[in-house]
Amino acid sequence: MNAPENQNISDTREHHQLRAADAANLLHPWADLSALGDESAMVIKSAKGVHVYDSNGKQYLDAIGGMWCITLGYGNEELIEAMAQQAREMVYYTPFGDMSSSPAARLAKKLAELAPGDLNRAHFTTCGSTAIDSAVRTAHYYFAAQGRPEKRHVLSRRNAYHGSTYLAASLCGKLADRTLFHYEADFVHHLASPEYDPDIATESADERLSALLEDMESEINRIGAENIACFVAEPILASGGVLVPPEGYHKATLDLCHKYDILYISDEVVTAFGRLGHFFASEVHFDILPDMIVAAKGISSGYQPLGVVMISDRIIDSIKANAPEDNPVFSNGYTYSGHPVACATAIANINIMERDNICAHVQELGPYFLSELRKLSSSPIVYTVRGHHLMACVECWTGEEAGPTERNIALAQRVDQYCEEAGVLVRPYENLCIMSPPLIVDRDDVDRIVTVMGDAIKRAQRDLDMGELD
Amino acid sequence: MNAPENQNISDTREHHQLRAADAANLLHPWADLSALGDESAMVIKSAKGVHVYDSNGKQYLDAIGGMWCITLGYGNEELIEAMAQQAREMVYYTPFGDMSSSPAARLAKKLAELAPGDLNRAHFTTCGSTAIDSAVRTAHYYFAAQGRPEKRHVLSRRNAYHGSTYLAASLCGKLADRTLFHYEADFVHHLASPEYDPDIATESADERLSALLEDMESEINRIGAENIACFVAEPILASGGVLVPPEGYHKATLDLCHKYDILYISDEVVTAFGRLGHFFASEVHFDILPDMIVAAKGISSGYQPLGVVMISDRIIDSIKANAPEDNPVFSNGYTYSGHPVACATAIANINIMERDNICAHVQELGPYFLSELRKLSSSPIVYTVRGHHLMACVECWTGEEAGPTERNIALAQRVDQYCEEAGVLVRPYENLCIMSPPLIVDRDDVDRIVTVMGDAIKRAQRDLDMGELD
Ligand SMILES: Cc1ncc(COP(=O)(O)O)c(C=O)c1O
Ligand SMILES: Cc1ncc(COP(=O)(O)O)c(C=O)c1O
Repeated sequence: MNAPENQNISDTREHHQLRAADAANLLHPWADLSALGDESAMVIKSAKGVHVYDSNGKQYLDAIGGMWCITLGYGNEELIEAMAQQAREMVYYTPFGDMSSSPAARLAKKLAELAPGDLNRAHFTTCGSTAIDSAVRTAHYYFAAQGRPEKRHVLSRRNAYHGSTYLAASLCGKLADRTLFHYEADFVHHLASPEYDPDIATESADERLSALLEDMESEINRIGAENIACFVAEPILASGGVLVPPEGYHKATLDLCHKYDILYISDEVVTAFGRLGHFFASEVHFDILPDMIVAAKGISSGYQPLGVVMISDRIIDSIKANAPEDNPVFSNGYTYSGHPVACATAIANINIMERDNICAHVQELGPYFLSELRKLSSSPIVYTVRGHHLMACVECWTGEEAGPTERNIALAQRVDQYCEEAGVLVRPYENLCIMSPPLIVDRDDVDRIVTVMGDAIKRAQRDLDMGELD
Repeated sequence: MNAPENQNISDTREHHQLRAADAANLLHPWADLSALGDESAMVIKSAKGVHVYDSNGKQYLDAIGGMWCITLGYGNEELIEAMAQQAREMVYYTPFGDMSSSPAARLAKKLAELAPGDLNRAHFTTCGSTAIDSAVRTAHYYFAAQGRPEKRHVLSRRNAYHGSTYLAASLCGKLADRTLFHYEADFVHHLASPEYDPDIATESADERLSALLEDMESEINRIGAENIACFVAEPILASGGVLVPPEGYHKATLDLCHKYDILYISDEVVTAFGRLGHFFASEVHFDILPDMIVAAKGISSGYQPLGVVMISDRIIDSIKANAPEDNPVFSNGYTYSGHPVACATAIANINIMERDNICAHVQELGPYFLSELRKLSSSPIVYTVRGHHLMACVECWTGEEAGPTERNIALAQRVDQYCEEAGVLVRPYENLCIMSPPLIVDRDDVDRIVTVMGDAIKRAQRDLDMGELD
């Protein structure tokens, strides 16, 4: 079994060695540079089902699903068997030009069946960022092939998260993520952050929607529609804080895109593959048929690095018709685009999801999770609870000022810390506690998450009341 | 066994289904758009050792190592076991902030031991492109933290290949790869292509070197050293056509970088992990200690998508010391940075390479491969043969004009095609036949590659002589 029952000396030594190696030789994503070199990392050593275990042997219920991605839980033997079998059969061959592999072709076919409308063409990449990067580049190609290379500007939104390549990072709109790196400013623009939370709103949803659309249309006119290639949007802004736009927003922004001949790229890196109870969420939940959908994370249940851009036949037909005769090569892609092992894992993931009715399970459990979680809003330190099926967040405040103030952040960190102590991992982000458990959680797991979160909130509130927050 | 001995009806049906799915639903990297939708893909179905098998059951000796990446050959049980075991133990957990995993920490430590000098810090990504992208972004951060954000321009070279994110693609200097996509032109600059081939040169190596250094220094002066963050360079330009710079070039360009306070990023995506007989080639072969080395491909023997930037302690110490107090977060990285399954595979790969003395094997076999291959230069349609250990290329010409003319390209394609017919896969690129076999090839494999290549050249020459090329 994975979970060590008795901590022994060699475990302890290994724990220290790992921390030392981590401190000396790793630069983590989003590393706190001021702590670089400190031997303070939490090392996750083993994992099974919905649980992970640190190098001290402590068990946690993983309420963040790895990082929005572990959908079928840890240690799933069928997924592992699919990986190993494909690696044995044919681990890799170049996917460039006219070379293909069975897993890539079969996964592409399956994705075309699952994706809405005419989104029938899969262009594989290695992660979400490279898929976003490729989607924007595809929009560039599409207009340039029509003789309109100047139509290359990109609309994103504040609080968006789209990844970490130079281009994807430039599309991000989270202020805290804008650090000393260089960001593209020539052709990337950020619209207003589109969240609407009826529980705390001071305006009506209609008022909010109008304001957002006005902002978008005036920005389009300012830049000139003739210069804009695409609009990139998460249906729900995940890392930005589970921000849900007002009803009708997705459809209305797509209409604006149609009006101005701007391609709509839906970033479903988080929302696809079951998190909202469907393989893709754009059409079912948000009533839009985008020109491209980007997916990653849950596509392989996090077992393998894999990203994909699903491209509509409309776009592809136009690109093919307009490609220059003297060099009709679509020069985009990666060594590991459509890696057979990753694609075989994704196929197995989809098969299991279909066989075990995972989407139906999420459709049933998601509303229960949210309604239980919403009961916590009665706490004075909970500003609001929001989400959609198995993505949710509790926003904390001290009762003074809302938002990511220093004290609100400290308060939320206290909640996270008490959850961790009690054996539940949630994701701290600013003054939010973000949750996206594996899709296989059952009612007991959900109850445990909510109970632990409720107790943690009570303890944090007591700390606040006692003046022990700082 | 993997290779079907007898083609049967169900194999044929599957072959057609795969081709149909490929044609309808996949957009390959570097797809020929004019052929999009044609059911013409070659599907590699299985692979073992140094051989791959297509969906018709035909066996090929894989002289390109997947695509510069399959170093330990196909179906290596130890690598597969390492993948599966790690997936069982702990398939994934977020690597962000202070969360770590045993495979990522152990691989980072191992890489720090293998990398030259003080390149002791590993920042993991999902592929070569994302590693290049991250390396350049790290250079941006480094200078911005010193209060010099304008020092962000990047020097690359014509004929370079660095990948396919918007930024990495912009660094590429291969003309044929510049299509209708948009490319960064504000801060990316291309120096002259630095190849020097003594067998065909009209100038001395010293003359060539002087010219290259003059070009570089005058470009630095034109842009202003105060505006330049880094120089990105493959030691040998791989996809550009196995272009080897003149002796002394690497050291002299590094000296120029030191003189002007420009960071040197060595792109060892192809040259690291044994292809030139060492884990890293920069120092051993080219006498340089870069500020960062980028690796991918052979790091996992191609079994898993993985990239890494090795960063020097000098850079890291400066970044840490100068990071702003109010937001000291290094906001770069990927969901799948340091994916435990990929890192465990890389650790196993390194262990096997060390145990089986793979580098020593390449050191011995590489020169033999090249000297055998060079014998083919006596053919009138071989313009030159060049390379370094297990990366090599045969450049074809009709005897009229050198370079990638239409007829030279047709000639090289003819050679490739005859090799393929005879059961050896080489990589066609313009008028070149590129080879980078798995590092585990033995003398017989090398002899077979050279013999088949020699026969293919003879047949192509006969076609040319008979006027049957076009
Ligand atoms: C909505 C969204 N898009 C894109 C990405 C980037 O994905 P990756 O980290 O795999 O590059 C993320 C990652 O969290 C994401 O949440
Ligand atoms: C030298 C070099 N750098 C970078 C890359 C990009 O690597 P990837 O395709 O894994 O993104 C390649 C790929 O061929 C390469 O040859």
